[in-house]
Amino acid sequence: MPSYQAPLRDYRFLLHELLDLGQYAALPGFADAAPDLVDAILDEAAKLTQEVLQPLNQIGDEQGCKLENGVVTTPEGFKAAYKTLVDGGWPALVVDPEYGGQGLPNTLGVLFNEMVSSSNMAFGMYPGLSHGVYSALHVHGSDELKKTYLPKIVTGEWTGTMNLTEPHCGTDLGLLRTKAVPQADGSYKITGQKIFISAGEHDLADNIIHLVLARIEGGPAGVKGISLFVAPKYLLKKDGSLGARNAVTCGALEHKMGIHGNATCVLNYDGATGWLVGEEHKGLRAMFTMMNEARLGVGLQGLSQSEVAYQNALAYAKDRIQGRSLTGIKAPDKAADPIIVHPDVRRMLLSAKAFNEGARALLVWTALHGDLANRSGDEKVREFGEDMMALLTPVIKGYFTDRGFANAVECQQVFGGHGYIDEWGMGQFVRDARIAMIYEGANGIQALDLVGRKLASNGGRGVFAFFKLIDDFIAEAGTDETLKPFVAGLSTARKDLEAATLWFMENALTNPDNAGAGSTDYLHMFGVTALAFMWAKMAKLAAEKLAAGTQEKDFYETKIATGRYFIDRMVPETALYLARVRVGSASMMALAADNF
Amino acid sequence: MPSYQAPLRDYRFLLHELLDLGQYAALPGFADAAPDLVDAILDEAAKLTQEVLQPLNQIGDEQGCKLENGVVTTPEGFKAAYKTLVDGGWPALVVDPEYGGQGLPNTLGVLFNEMVSSSNMAFGMYPGLSHGVYSALHVHGSDELKKTYLPKIVTGEWTGTMNLTEPHCGTDLGLLRTKAVPQADGSYKITGQKIFISAGEHDLADNIIHLVLARIEGGPAGVKGISLFVAPKYLLKKDGSLGARNAVTCGALEHKMGIHGNATCVLNYDGATGWLVGEEHKGLRAMFTMMNEARLGVGLQGLSQSEVAYQNALAYAKDRIQGRSLTGIKAPDKAADPIIVHPDVRRMLLSAKAFNEGARALLVWTALHGDLANRSGDEKVREFGEDMMALLTPVIKGYFTDRGFANAVECQQVFGGHGYIDEWGMGQFVRDARIAMIYEGANGIQALDLVGRKLASNGGRGVFAFFKLIDDFIAEAGTDETLKPFVAGLSTARKDLEAATLWFMENALTNPDNAGAGSTDYLHMFGVTALAFMWAKMAKLAAEKLAAGTQEKDFYETKIATGRYFIDRMVPETALYLARVRVGSASMMALAADNF
Repeated sequence: MPSYQAPLRDYRFLLHELLDLGQYAALPGFADAAPDLVDAILDEAAKLTQEVLQPLNQIGDEQGCKLENGVVTTPEGFKAAYKTLVDGGWPALVVDPEYGGQGLPNTLGVLFNEMVSSSNMAFGMYPGLSHGVYSALHVHGSDELKKTYLPKIVTGEWTGTMNLTEPHCGTDLGLLRTKAVPQADGSYKITGQKIFISAGEHDLADNIIHLVLARIEGGPAGVKGISLFVAPKYLLKKDGSLGARNAVTCGALEHKMGIHGNATCVLNYDGATGWLVGEEHKGLRAMFTMMNEARLGVGLQGLSQSEVAYQNALAYAKDRIQGRSLTGIKAPDKAADPIIVHPDVRRMLLSAKAFNEGARALLVWTALHGDLANRSGDEKVREFGEDMMALLTPVIKGYFTDRGFANAVECQQVFGGHGYIDEWGMGQFVRDARIAMIYEGANGIQALDLVGRKLASNGGRGVFAFFKLIDDFIAEAGTDETLKPFVAGLSTARKDLEAATLWFMENALTNPDNAGAGSTDYLHMFGVTALAFMWAKMAKLAAEKLAAGTQEKDFYETKIATGRYFIDRMVPETALYLARVRVGSASMMALAADNF
Repeated sequence: MPSYQAPLRDYRFLLHELLDLGQYAALPGFADAAPDLVDAILDEAAKLTQEVLQPLNQIGDEQGCKLENGVVTTPEGFKAAYKTLVDGGWPALVVDPEYGGQGLPNTLGVLFNEMVSSSNMAFGMYPGLSHGVYSALHVHGSDELKKTYLPKIVTGEWTGTMNLTEPHCGTDLGLLRTKAVPQADGSYKITGQKIFISAGEHDLADNIIHLVLARIEGGPAGVKGISLFVAPKYLLKKDGSLGARNAVTCGALEHKMGIHGNATCVLNYDGATGWLVGEEHKGLRAMFTMMNEARLGVGLQGLSQSEVAYQNALAYAKDRIQGRSLTGIKAPDKAADPIIVHPDVRRMLLSAKAFNEGARALLVWTALHGDLANRSGDEKVREFGEDMMALLTPVIKGYFTDRGFANAVECQQVFGGHGYIDEWGMGQFVRDARIAMIYEGANGIQALDLVGRKLASNGGRGVFAFFKLIDDFIAEAGTDETLKPFVAGLSTARKDLEAATLWFMENALTNPDNAGAGSTDYLHMFGVTALAFMWAKMAKLAAEKLAAGTQEKDFYETKIATGRYFIDRMVPETALYLARVRVGSASMMALAADNF
């Protein structure tokens, strides 16, 4: 049976030491994020996820969700666990106090989400999607819609979903066919079929609030004719209590590779009543508010599975004895050495560990910039925060989920044959992690978003600001011996990334396929560089702590050693990605489709 | 529903054009491998696999095997399909005529195995393991054992298994506890528990012949006290007919991530009767005969899943319309372009295609050298064949299965959300491919075998002979324009591989962890270099065909373009692997186990 321990020491290191959240106490919500309060919240969240959610993870995988007569039943224990989550007020954590939220920074929220997802990814999607619906309604909904729906979404009494995909379209939403017909009372009748709707129907909450993309009858073709609607499972009476069942039903549950505990629904809209969110024909923009947040949330799912897979692989590697160290017997009292003595086992473990800690740093760093974009009184800080969020969202979504999956696979490998057996739970981490590379915009779309949109936006303001941050760090780092390899590695990665960026500028205008051909490599290069930056910052901090004298020598030395591994073995990847970017699109586009 | 078409044109290209099997007609068995005979066999095999085995693949995954009262039932249709296989004489294809085989070269056999595995990997393991048992008994069994067991294994009436792993030991067989007690009649009573026994119990055949590693009571500890035994499910009467049930039973079936159609058994030996195969205490050597062949067979499983996943992804990419080409509309009659216009989709497809065709070339080239090692009258040729087999077996096992899995994942990605849904079958390819990285020696063990054993054996004779082959090719290739990039790419890869080889020689003696730390990178570098070599050879041949004028211009031009993709985008990996090898083991070994 797999286990999970929330990495609380690492969380405290990031929030209090690396980001020093205390310095933002004057901003809304940050005063409540004082170290002792944050630590208390993290401790409670750890209990919830370790004791309530994690024990249900394998059960959820084995049982899956069931559909009978239109009613979806979640796995054993999910309902009670969801009630515990709601009773604890967790859905309100980072939500606007006006609607009952606690208003804490999302910098803390992403760590809570990581814990939930590490302990039970399929379960975490129920509240996760609700939060996305909250965000979209909060920004784009009318006051009336907000008053109607937000309070109960904030408490978690109701959950939410996002309905984009149809059988014939996912990425290309311009093709969507679901229709909305205006009614005399200002509502719309929505008709069409939506697929892959996570948490689309279930027994956890009293009501489910669907956000649906549809085309208003007679609206323009393509993406310019798409509008966003809210359509609850149960219509509301005047007093806000639940009324009639709306004409939206679950037609089927998908049988899928993983996240069995989450109900992936075909939703049929047969003249369901809905209300417009935001402006007519501008639904895609409104939905993107939700999707950007969702993409960060999916990125952290990649990290979350890498983390829990790593923890279990580490425990196995310390316990399992097999063979002897290449450099001589290490456990003479045992019939063999624990397999953690073998370099190749360490390679698999450290690749995950060095990614996890670096990725987590980038996650909170980016979330902080999102918070600053929303809460800072300084326009420059807000703009910079927005730039970092926009630039790094596709990187976090694409790189974290690709690497998170790869790490889960390598951690499974540590178990040898036992890793393939369901009982050990490693296969579930791999199968669950797999979806994160696909949904909320497949990773190829993230790469195109990065290369085709984010690099160029505001004349490259975001990416050049990011380079400058790195340059400033390098200039400040000086010639400290411990930091030297970090500075060298970071400089190399930064140079490669800049070279690739310039190559796109020179070669993609004349032939956009040159951008498409190198986009995934570029995204990975960006991810490696951003993590190298985070590792350099963390190593600097750790070196300062050690120099100042600390009770936790092991912790800070381990930070430096882990970062060193990242620099030694991951940073060399940037040269490969650059070489591939520079190859361009010729050999990729050479074959006619019929000659494949 | 996924589909499969045997890549027959590619097979003919490899056997008749690249290898020119006709030149070996004087060797035993090769006369029967004349082009028209080979083509007829391939055509029949394609029918069997496409029409009989492939339609059962998803059924096998869904139903799995069932154990009731010690009896294992395979999925619906497996029994009839197995009978078709046996009736067709397929298990006898590459087997010694003395025992009823057709004696054809294994060069052909590996392609038959690829087809079987692409169409239904779980099913293919039943005859696959039987063939391994055949090989071990054929080389190490006494005449009496051979006469007793081989004929019915050759027909396929009986199947076989290999029993190595125990709950506490897999890689480190020195720890095994299963005991064999000598009996007065020359037999042994075997007692112990074996796990992960593929095809360990089932309803396909009348008898199952288990090869079992056990320790003869009082024998030396460690690997030097391990002996190999044969223990049939049913003991035989004097006349060879089935007698009493032997005391070996299936205690449980494992619930696992994939290959559900194959029964993975816990086998309990409770004083089961067995007979020694080969010499006392030399069982590991005997088992290795079987394992080397099995490793080639597992390597091709990686290729097989990459191939079938590629075929289905290609069909989807041509059919699915979504978005428009970055360089302008390509299908103006449709609402969107087929997704094969997008560079990143092509990247995923071509990475698989370029691997598949290069890997298949290396597979048959290596199998041919195995055949020459066994059948040539020229001692030099035999020695060279043995060297190539020894050197390339871990490369094929490790690199093919790592890449095959990665390709299956990328081909699944082409489907977007649909790739995650069971119905489309892509998840099964990924899950089935996953085991090939683990069993028959986890890939980390393959890497150690390559670096720690194969490089050094006979003073590096094998690896230096391999370098010389490449050098000779480069010298001959001259300055042909089409070949230039192939020669350049191959030269770079070869140079990097040699540099890594020399680095190990200089740094691993003083610290063996330096070999362990770089072993997986080195194995991948070897794989890329070997495939670059195969691609250069194929491109040369294709260029010659085109220069001479051919009816199949598209076929040969596609070969060159596909190879060019491999050179452009895969060969740059060798620099990364070299950089990682040279980093050494310091940062990998730095952390104490408790500080992970």
